[in-house]
Amino acid sequence: MHQSKLFGKTLREDPKDEVSVNARLLERGGFVYKTMAGVYDYLPLGWRVLENINRIIREEMNAIGGQELLLSALQPKERWQKTGRWEGLEEIMYRFKDNSGREMALAPTHEEPLAEIATRSIFSYKDLPLFVYQIQTKFRDEPRAKSGLIRGREFLMKDLYSFHTDEKDLDAFYKKADAAYRRVFSRCGLKAFVTEASGGTFTKNYSHEFQVLSEAGEDWLLYCAKCGYAQNKEISKIGVGHKCPKCTGKIEQGRSIEAGNIFKLGTKFSDAFGLFYADARGVKNPVVMGSYGIGPGRLLGTMVEVHADSRGILWPDEVAPFGIHLIELLPREGGGRAKVKKAAEKLYKDLVAKGATVLYDEREEKTAGEKFADADLIGIPWRVVVSERSLEKKSVEVKRRDAEAPILLKMNQFGAFIKKEFL
Amino acid sequence: MHQSKLFGKTLREDPKDEVSVNARLLERGGFVYKTMAGVYDYLPLGWRVLENINRIIREEMNAIGGQELLLSALQPKERWQKTGRWEGLEEIMYRFKDNSGREMALAPTHEEPLAEIATRSIFSYKDLPLFVYQIQTKFRDEPRAKSGLIRGREFLMKDLYSFHTDEKDLDAFYKKADAAYRRVFSRCGLKAFVTEASGGTFTKNYSHEFQVLSEAGEDWLLYCAKCGYAQNKEISKIGVGHKCPKCTGKIEQGRSIEAGNIFKLGTKFSDAFGLFYADARGVKNPVVMGSYGIGPGRLLGTMVEVHADSRGILWPDEVAPFGIHLIELLPREGGGRAKVKKAAEKLYKDLVAKGATVLYDEREEKTAGEKFADADLIGIPWRVVVSERSLEKKSVEVKRRDAEAPILLKMNQFGAFIKKEFL
Repeated sequence: MHQSKLFGKTLREDPKDEVSVNARLLERGGFVYKTMAGVYDYLPLGWRVLENINRIIREEMNAIGGQELLLSALQPKERWQKTGRWEGLEEIMYRFKDNSGREMALAPTHEEPLAEIATRSIFSYKDLPLFVYQIQTKFRDEPRAKSGLIRGREFLMKDLYSFHTDEKDLDAFYKKADAAYRRVFSRCGLKAFVTEASGGTFTKNYSHEFQVLSEAGEDWLLYCAKCGYAQNKEISKIGVGHKCPKCTGKIEQGRSIEAGNIFKLGTKFSDAFGLFYADARGVKNPVVMGSYGIGPGRLLGTMVEVHADSRGILWPDEVAPFGIHLIELLPREGGGRAKVKKAAEKLYKDLVAKGATVLYDEREEKTAGEKFADADLIGIPWRVVVSERSLEKKSVEVKRRDAEAPILLKMNQFGAFIKKEFL
Repeated sequence: MHQSKLFGKTLREDPKDEVSVNARLLERGGFVYKTMAGVYDYLPLGWRVLENINRIIREEMNAIGGQELLLSALQPKERWQKTGRWEGLEEIMYRFKDNSGREMALAPTHEEPLAEIATRSIFSYKDLPLFVYQIQTKFRDEPRAKSGLIRGREFLMKDLYSFHTDEKDLDAFYKKADAAYRRVFSRCGLKAFVTEASGGTFTKNYSHEFQVLSEAGEDWLLYCAKCGYAQNKEISKIGVGHKCPKCTGKIEQGRSIEAGNIFKLGTKFSDAFGLFYADARGVKNPVVMGSYGIGPGRLLGTMVEVHADSRGILWPDEVAPFGIHLIELLPREGGGRAKVKKAAEKLYKDLVAKGATVLYDEREEKTAGEKFADADLIGIPWRVVVSERSLEKKSVEVKRRDAEAPILLKMNQFGAFIKKEFL
C-alpha cells in the first residue's frame, strides 16, 4: 500500500474530546474516526487490524468445533418478552417502532434468537453438543462511553453459543472454550486473568471474565501475580495484601479491562423457547446452554492501552496492520534522488511479491522527522528505511518498533531476514 | 463437515408465510431463518455462501484499488440534516432517541459519513482519486418486504465510494467499476443487463442499474437480447416490439431484479460537508464523488431465483457452500455396513486433506431417498455416493447437480477427477 494513497491521515494533535489513550492514538494514527461517543468508524488501517483479530478468533473458534453464522440486529419485542429481558435489558436496548407500528429493538446480545432458532435443529441427544458463533455488530445504549473502543455503543462482538445434554457436557466444553480464549489473548499479545464475576441478566451462576490489567479499565481486580489467581473486587472476599488462597503469593489490586466473558446459562433460555431434546429413552429434557463473548474492537482498544509508549502504538506481530513500514528518504535534489526512489520501489515490489504486507511511505512532501514520527505513531513492528546514506553502504536500515536504534542490514542479507521473520 | 452435526436442518415442507422462491428454498434447505419480514438470519450453510460472495466482491473491489473500511450503522441526526436527507429518507430510516434524548438513525446508505470523514483525508489534488468500500449491514424500513432475501429491512451491502478531481476522472473510474461489477455477476453465475434509471435522493443524474431477468423481480425491463441494450420501463421511451436503437434486434420486456447500482453523485455531498481539494494552482474545488452498491444477500437470493428447479437449488461453483456432497448409503445390516462406512470416512478425510470442501452425509436414520432429496434441495454442485453397490465395482457414483444420471468413477480415477475439478 502506497502511504500517499491511504485513506485516513495521521493528525498532528490529539483529538480534543477524547480522554482514553486508545481513542487518542487510534484517531491520531488514522485508524478510526469518531462518529459519536462510543461509535467509531474503522478506516483502512483500523480495519486491517480488526480483520487480523477476527481471523485469530475464527481460527480458534473453528478449532473447537464452532460453526459460523450471522444473525440479525433487528429483533421483535415478542421474542425478548419470553425471557423477561425486554424489561431486564430496557436500559441498554435501542428500541423503536417501524412504519407499521411494530415494536422492535437492536440486539445487545443473542441468546434469545439462538434458543429459538435451535428448536429447528435440536430434537434428539444425537444432535448434541452443538457450537455456533458469529462476529456481528451489537448495539448497547451505554450511559458512559468514555473509554474509546473499550466500551462502545455499537461494536463488533464474537459471541459463541453452546448446546448440551447436561451440565457435565457443558463443563467439558466450557474448559475447551476457556483454553481457546487464552490462545486468542496470547496471540493478541495480551495477558489475561480469568476471574469469577456476577452473571447479570444471563445467569444466576457466576460467570467468568477475562481481565487485562490496565489503567483504562473500568473494573478492579484482586489478583496474585505469582499463580494467576484473580477475583473481581465486587464479589471478592479477599483483600489487598492477603495471602493468595491458591499459592504462597500475595494479593495485589489493579484497574482492569474485561476483554471477554463466558457464561453457564443452564436452561433459562431453553425453558423459555421450548428447546428440548429426547434422550436415549425418548424422555424430553431442556437443552443446557452456554454463551461466550469476546469483543474484537474492545481487544483492539485494549492492545493499544497495553502496548503504547509516548510516541505511539506498538502492535503485536500477528495483528499489525502491515508487517513492514518501508520508508524512502529522498535527498532534496541531485542524482541520488532518482537512485533512492528506484531502490525503494524495487524493494517494495520484491517484498510484496514475497508475500509480505508493506506500507510504503513514498510521500514526497514529508521530512524524515515527520515520517519517523508517523511510523512510531502507527506502530508497525518493523521499520525499513532506504536512504542515500544506507545505499552508500549497500544497505537498508532496519528497526523494530520497540528497539532503541536501527541496525544496518546489507541488501544481500535482506532476503534471508524476510524469510526468517515473515515467511 | 459432518451433516449430522450441521446447525440448521432441512424442512420437509415450504414455510407457510413465504411467497418467494428464494425464501422458500433457502429456509427449507436450512440456509436461513426468518426473524421478521425482510429480516433473515444466516445459518452456517447460508453464511458459507454469503462469505463466498463477499470474497468475490472483495477481490474485484481490491483489484480496482478499493480500500476496505467499516462504518457505523448509528448516525447522528445533524449529519444527515446537512444534505436534507434527514427529511428525504424519512420513510425508510429507522429512527429513535437514545437514553440522553439524542436523535439518531440507522444508516440506510453511507454517502454522508464518507463525505464527512474524507475531509480529514483529502486536501490536495495529489490525494485524489481515492476509492473506499465496506461490506456492512444496512437498515431500511421497506414498506413491502415479500421478496425474501431480495428486499431486506436489514441486509449486508457492499458500498464503494469514489472521490475525484473532476467529472472526467469520475467517468474513467465509473467504467472500471462497471467492468468490475460485470465480473462479480459473471463469477456469481448471473447475466446482468446494465440500464439507466432514476438517481433518487442520490443524484439528479441518471444512475445505472445491473438488472437480472427473473420473475421474482420488482422492476420491468425493456431489453434487446441480441446486443444487451436495456432500459428501465419507468424512464423508457421505447416499447415492446420496437426496433433496438443499438442493433437490428427487437425490444422485449421482462420483470427483473435490481442486483446492483452505480451513481455519479457530482458534488452534492462534497458541497454539504465542505469536502474541497486544492488544485495545482492552489484553488479550492469541491471533490466529485461516485457511489457503487451491490447487495451480497440480494445476490444470493437472486442466484436462487435464477438457478433452481422443482427439487431445489443449483449453486454456481464459485459460491456453493461446499464443493462436494459426499453421501454414504449404509446397507441395513451385515458386514457391508462397516465396509461402506470405512470407505466413506476414508474418502472424506482424503478429500478434506486435498483441500476440497465437503459436506459428508453420514446420517444413519435417513433413507437413500431422503438423502438424495436433501442433496438436491441444498444444491451442492457435485454429489458423490459411496454404497455397497458402488464398492462392489471399486467405484463411487458421481453426479453434477444438473445432470440427469450419475456416472460410476473408479476409485483409482477419483484422485485425477478431484485434481481437475477442484484444485
